[in-house]
Amino acid sequence: MKLEKLVGERFKERPADCSIDSHALMVRGGYIKQVANGIYSFTPTMKRIVRKIENIIREEMDAIDGQEVVFPVVMPATLWQESGRYEGVGKELMRFNDRNDVPLLLGMTHEEAAVHLVREYGNSYAKYPFMIYQIQTKIRDEARPRAGLFRLREFTMKDAYSYHTSQEDLQTYYNKAHKAYERIFARVGLPQVMSVEADSGMMGGKVSNEFMLLVPSGEDSIVTCEKCDYRANIESAAGIVVNTMPETLEVLTKTHTPGTKTIDDVCAYLKLPIENSCKAVIYQKASGEFIVLFIRGDQEANETKIGNLVGEEIFPASITEASGLIAGFLGPIGLKNVQILFDDSLKGTGNLCCGANETDYHFTGFNIERDFGVVEYHDFSKATKGGTCPNCNKPSIAISRGIEVGHIFHLGEKYTRSMEMKYVDETGKANYPIMGCYGIGVGRTAASVCEAYHDDYGPIWPMSIAPWQIHLCCVKSQDSETKVYADELYQNLQAEGIEVIYDDRPVSPGVMFSDADLLGVPLRIIVSPRNMKEGCCEVVSRDKAIKEMVKHDDVIACVQRLINEML
Amino acid sequence: MKLEKLVGERFKERPADCSIDSHALMVRGGYIKQVANGIYSFTPTMKRIVRKIENIIREEMDAIDGQEVVFPVVMPATLWQESGRYEGVGKELMRFNDRNDVPLLLGMTHEEAAVHLVREYGNSYAKYPFMIYQIQTKIRDEARPRAGLFRLREFTMKDAYSYHTSQEDLQTYYNKAHKAYERIFARVGLPQVMSVEADSGMMGGKVSNEFMLLVPSGEDSIVTCEKCDYRANIESAAGIVVNTMPETLEVLTKTHTPGTKTIDDVCAYLKLPIENSCKAVIYQKASGEFIVLFIRGDQEANETKIGNLVGEEIFPASITEASGLIAGFLGPIGLKNVQILFDDSLKGTGNLCCGANETDYHFTGFNIERDFGVVEYHDFSKATKGGTCPNCNKPSIAISRGIEVGHIFHLGEKYTRSMEMKYVDETGKANYPIMGCYGIGVGRTAASVCEAYHDDYGPIWPMSIAPWQIHLCCVKSQDSETKVYADELYQNLQAEGIEVIYDDRPVSPGVMFSDADLLGVPLRIIVSPRNMKEGCCEVVSRDKAIKEMVKHDDVIACVQRLINEML
Repeated sequence: MKLEKLVGERFKERPADCSIDSHALMVRGGYIKQVANGIYSFTPTMKRIVRKIENIIREEMDAIDGQEVVFPVVMPATLWQESGRYEGVGKELMRFNDRNDVPLLLGMTHEEAAVHLVREYGNSYAKYPFMIYQIQTKIRDEARPRAGLFRLREFTMKDAYSYHTSQEDLQTYYNKAHKAYERIFARVGLPQVMSVEADSGMMGGKVSNEFMLLVPSGEDSIVTCEKCDYRANIESAAGIVVNTMPETLEVLTKTHTPGTKTIDDVCAYLKLPIENSCKAVIYQKASGEFIVLFIRGDQEANETKIGNLVGEEIFPASITEASGLIAGFLGPIGLKNVQILFDDSLKGTGNLCCGANETDYHFTGFNIERDFGVVEYHDFSKATKGGTCPNCNKPSIAISRGIEVGHIFHLGEKYTRSMEMKYVDETGKANYPIMGCYGIGVGRTAASVCEAYHDDYGPIWPMSIAPWQIHLCCVKSQDSETKVYADELYQNLQAEGIEVIYDDRPVSPGVMFSDADLLGVPLRIIVSPRNMKEGCCEVVSRDKAIKEMVKHDDVIACVQRLINEML
Repeated sequence: MKLEKLVGERFKERPADCSIDSHALMVRGGYIKQVANGIYSFTPTMKRIVRKIENIIREEMDAIDGQEVVFPVVMPATLWQESGRYEGVGKELMRFNDRNDVPLLLGMTHEEAAVHLVREYGNSYAKYPFMIYQIQTKIRDEARPRAGLFRLREFTMKDAYSYHTSQEDLQTYYNKAHKAYERIFARVGLPQVMSVEADSGMMGGKVSNEFMLLVPSGEDSIVTCEKCDYRANIESAAGIVVNTMPETLEVLTKTHTPGTKTIDDVCAYLKLPIENSCKAVIYQKASGEFIVLFIRGDQEANETKIGNLVGEEIFPASITEASGLIAGFLGPIGLKNVQILFDDSLKGTGNLCCGANETDYHFTGFNIERDFGVVEYHDFSKATKGGTCPNCNKPSIAISRGIEVGHIFHLGEKYTRSMEMKYVDETGKANYPIMGCYGIGVGRTAASVCEAYHDDYGPIWPMSIAPWQIHLCCVKSQDSETKVYADELYQNLQAEGIEVIYDDRPVSPGVMFSDADLLGVPLRIIVSPRNMKEGCCEVVSRDKAIKEMVKHDDVIACVQRLINEML
């Protein structure tokens, strides 16, 4: 391919609306073009990268006996009503009616379609296990699309669904799929991607693993232990706090605490350590019902855990006068008409301060069981740096930022049971199959690679997914000897099956190399009048690790060897 | 792949709701499964076929310098408002709002997205010509989805867009694309597909060609000339009728014609040849406005041609009393509040009968120019069997049924002008590029092949797009010697890179062969205890043309030779 014919425009200025480097570089390099908020077209350069990633994924899915299928983008509401998700999923599910007013939706995931396709096929135990997958467009009405290809409204995903007759068989296959994911990330150039325990969200099952690339720009918080191999998304990591019950219980006393609306204010005013406070955090359900969580003052609430317990999405509360709630002074005693939750961090505490549900008043000497009653504690808090590891119990928790590049789940019987998919076992009894599901974002993987490997001038693509293998630069193509040689080299490289992008434009070396940097091809061959004099080409790697003068006779063999080493 | 592991169920009974053979066979053979009206999932077997077709298309697009891109399925209404199509296209365009009430739509074609992607890139004449294409999901809210994969609401298409600086350059490229299409159809096994002149519909330009497969089940009518190479879709074929003006003009006379509501009734009652009648055909615009077309009594009206003239979609009329129109007795004289059109077939006529706009009355001796006035005639009639060829003028028109498998268009400046895409030419002047567009349905191509090549028992896939190259049957796999040999042959065939589906189930030969017929793999190897005794396998082609006993030592070489011959 000649660079001058490559569709897509490149430019120097970092676009103002790009918050992360990969986004800025992919716009500047002519990889993607925004069509609407969170919706992009891909240029030929990007399509080449994406196709290579898809092929790697396809090979690894086929290697674990996956069978490729196609599910539709548009599905009837009735199909999602079978599983209960038509009503259960929020606004991110795009819903609309067809010309006959039949309600339809756009697939953001395909569990229902996957059960529909094999509901009759999978009628006997002899057919199990099996796995089907697709690589297809998904649509999801994100509230806040952002960060280029990381948070989109339309994206391409590989989603796979496996079917089993026992939990053990699912676990065996899940482990195989986990290994396939490790191979995929290694092959696309991201061997550092780590698997972490994750929240299953709306998917149904209990076990799930996210594959995380740790980068400072990541939008997820990842909990790791510095002493053992514990790794989890903060949404699912257990928050562990150990309390020592005081020897003497104080008397419950209402105290005037004027203007102390935050927990820090109150503790400072009362001269109490923050660990001795019972903080209120307030949310609302979609119905408007309030949920008040009490948590130790130094801990942060985790919305995902609360949502999982109440069984639906929750939102930050907006407190009106009519609610009767006294913001800033909420406490358990006398609190009415709300759902009250207690976090594990309050277990074993005593002599706390807490709001008195009265403006400018708090209680001190609050002891939950004595003054309020017996309560159930659950884990609602966020793990924090230096906190206790739930695996090794050492105070060695670290928090990093990460990008989720893949997610695999146990689904259990959620979909087969609700959609009445059954098989007959060896004894003639009808059972619901157990499912697993395995997702990976294709464009997101490309963007993750770019986020992990780039400099100020452009992406540095690994050989396995680079749009081309060689970027051939003919500097001063006005010089006929140089041009004749470069043209010939271009033909010869292609004849060897090497993927070449050839820049023979009559532009300055500066323009030529900055374009090459933006395209990020891992190896560059520079032909120039100066090199010609020495009978050499310059072979340079995009990451600057390689920079060699190579004799004309050896150029093809040299780059072939380098390509193979880098693949 | 082992047949017993292949996801997808096969069955014997023809499904009741399948009107055409390819649909019935693709459902029975476990290729497709309906998810909603006009929306299907594809099983692994179908996906294999589709992938091969896509690869053939991709190779041929790349061979004419096409660059593959991806456009989004979901687009903002604003993008289609730029071209005017958001308002111009009817209900087949699926429209809906996102969570912020921003109007979106689902792509049924991507001219707007194609201009959007290159609007800045294509700013100089030096970039031209270029072509971009995608292979992607399209969504179209068909009023009547039908015929399996032929008329869907969701389907995969390759759509390509080329950009030029002159009409001549477009025509040169258009001819290249036309040849690429011929190669595609030849390679997928449909060399008989013919290119016909076609209507451009809502696409904008004037020149277009459809690629038609002539089959009795086709939903299009194709006009061919038996004396020359004229070929056109009936929607665009000129209807040619030659009249001889009578020597003496009769007097216009109102006649009582009780109960004669059809043109045949009137002509019989008045004892006039049908060629001497002026028939009224009535339509309505979306606004409700009536359009009355007058046409020679023996001719049929072509709705597409009328729609093209009035510039919008038209519908069969529903005549109410309030309209003042006297159904069955409509004629030009005194007709009010409607748009009146005259077909070419009335040019040069005289002494006609026509409705008198009064119940039970017609005129005779009607002469248009004398009794009504000077009118413009246009071509609104359907070509008919035995009619005059517009190319060679011989009365040799034949009408066949066909399936449209591809469609290519001149688009002209319709989209570049409305969307303000300009390039600067050699002289520094800004111009609008001229576009061409080139579509082919992927699933539709597969279904067309099935429609062209099948018997009562299943499809007969050409080698180039068959899901597998070899169907290996181990008859009586209970026999251990047979099974051992067949297993080994399966391994050896795969080791040679041959695509094999292997049936070693302990089922009767009847079940085994009827499944093989449904999968339609072009070559079959039968291993059985009887064949083992002779040291042979049976090699049979799905179309029964080949049926040989081949010595064990020669089997692989034999099928390799046959595969190559059939590719």
